[in-house]
Amino acid sequence: MEAVNVSCCQIAPHFGDVAANRSLCERAVAEAAGQGAELVVLPELATTGYVFTGPDEAAALAEPADGPSVRGWVALAGRLGVTIVGGWCERGSSGHLYNSAAVVTGDGVAAVYRKAHLWDGEKLIFSQGSARPPVLSIGDARISVMICYDLEFPEWVRLPALAGAQLLCVPANWPVMPPPGPPGERPMEVVRAQAAASTNRIFIAVCDRVGPERGVDWVGHSVICDPDGWPITGPAPAAVACTIGAGCSLALADNKAISGHNDVLADRRPGLYRALGEGNG
Amino acid sequence: MEAVNVSCCQIAPHFGDVAANRSLCERAVAEAAGQGAELVVLPELATTGYVFTGPDEAAALAEPADGPSVRGWVALAGRLGVTIVGGWCERGSSGHLYNSAAVVTGDGVAAVYRKAHLWDGEKLIFSQGSARPPVLSIGDARISVMICYDLEFPEWVRLPALAGAQLLCVPANWPVMPPPGPPGERPMEVVRAQAAASTNRIFIAVCDRVGPERGVDWVGHSVICDPDGWPITGPAPAAVACTIGAGCSLALADNKAISGHNDVLADRRPGLYRALGEGNG
Repeated sequence: MEAVNVSCCQIAPHFGDVAANRSLCERAVAEAAGQGAELVVLPELATTGYVFTGPDEAAALAEPADGPSVRGWVALAGRLGVTIVGGWCERGSSGHLYNSAAVVTGDGVAAVYRKAHLWDGEKLIFSQGSARPPVLSIGDARISVMICYDLEFPEWVRLPALAGAQLLCVPANWPVMPPPGPPGERPMEVVRAQAAASTNRIFIAVCDRVGPERGVDWVGHSVICDPDGWPITGPAPAAVACTIGAGCSLALADNKAISGHNDVLADRRPGLYRALGEGNG
Repeated sequence: MEAVNVSCCQIAPHFGDVAANRSLCERAVAEAAGQGAELVVLPELATTGYVFTGPDEAAALAEPADGPSVRGWVALAGRLGVTIVGGWCERGSSGHLYNSAAVVTGDGVAAVYRKAHLWDGEKLIFSQGSARPPVLSIGDARISVMICYDLEFPEWVRLPALAGAQLLCVPANWPVMPPPGPPGERPMEVVRAQAAASTNRIFIAVCDRVGPERGVDWVGHSVICDPDGWPITGPAPAAVACTIGAGCSLALADNKAISGHNDVLADRRPGLYRALGEGNG
């Protein structure tokens, strides 16, 4: 079974310095590709940083999906022969702002995903996306994407799994929230990622960031989980910029069997789950 | 905030010896109550054992919800002043068999829940339940119940959380499935329980069993997780019959806020989740 080499570049963006962050992303992706990466995940809002004072500051740094940051990733993907999944601050055609991620290859932008579950002050800045995570065939791989807090909604992870995703790429900015967990425990963000991978029998690659920004610190702990839920690389350190990578035998995610009579997707009882879709929002 | 003392009795049933298992349950519950437990969780199929050769053997050991095992638990609950949640092999009025759990107090049977997601060879023995996990008000506590593999369906855990459950009691028989996890890792069963607690901000008390039975060994690792997902007691050892217990400040589960602008239930986007309820089964 052929593996796809997946890397997560846990970088430390410089708030507001888009040019510097483009270079930082480029160097990190090139270094990962040099080590064999075929698919590289960057953090959420990788080109701007995260801690906006409000919508005006975000608007001033926002770019459309055909802006220079995403076009730069397409060019980089083409030059290196890789797929890149990264987050940026999107200005939509209506002028609304979105916390978005692009999936790009050398052929262009394969998909733009807009975060559907907004975190904290993001609600004062961004419009929420309302489209499901796309499932994209890139070579033999079927990949999907969502952003940070989205991953904490098991309903949201289930949808691309049901649609055949083998690998879920998750650009993230996990802020450290008090109180700290008990000594020796993994961050709950990682525990939830593991459970999501295991529950759906998919690979999940979470790329977090580091580097304190305007008083906010980050969990780090980027991780790639296999369909059993085990970290196959990472969790990365909390506060160190670094790249983690692993070969992911994505076809393993096509096998949902976990016993002679069980299949984690076929065993669902959708007729009993209808209440989950009741209501708006 | 007043805490409810919750215990899980990780016993080692004797296959097929219902009288012995009733006594075993009674001793374990009495011991837990003696240590202050107010709510005691017993494993799945606590009165029979698990590894039936087939439906005939299960039928011979099955009892209705008003049979002597559950009536015995009601009497015991009354005598000790506790709530008991335990699993047994139920013969329904139609003669169908169910893998069921009863929630009982001294006042009687508060609820019977029939496992909705059947594990492996259970599919050859039991009919699947088709009713949601009940949410019961017992004193000031709102408790729910599901059984073992049910817990691996995030959709199923979400339903009682949405209905206001503060504590989810989970009688389980977690069979050890190869291959073993990486050294030093917690069993994925525990990881998934932690994530389920955290994702819904509820307490989850899983009571597993021990004692090899007809070639099957068990994970053990009974655990009580708080709404942050941390084990507040356990995981228990893999192979030791024991009782774990902790005070659970259940009102903590009423607070779903995780930041100034986030609430794990209110942040759901049900209008986007409808596909989860499409199809039958």
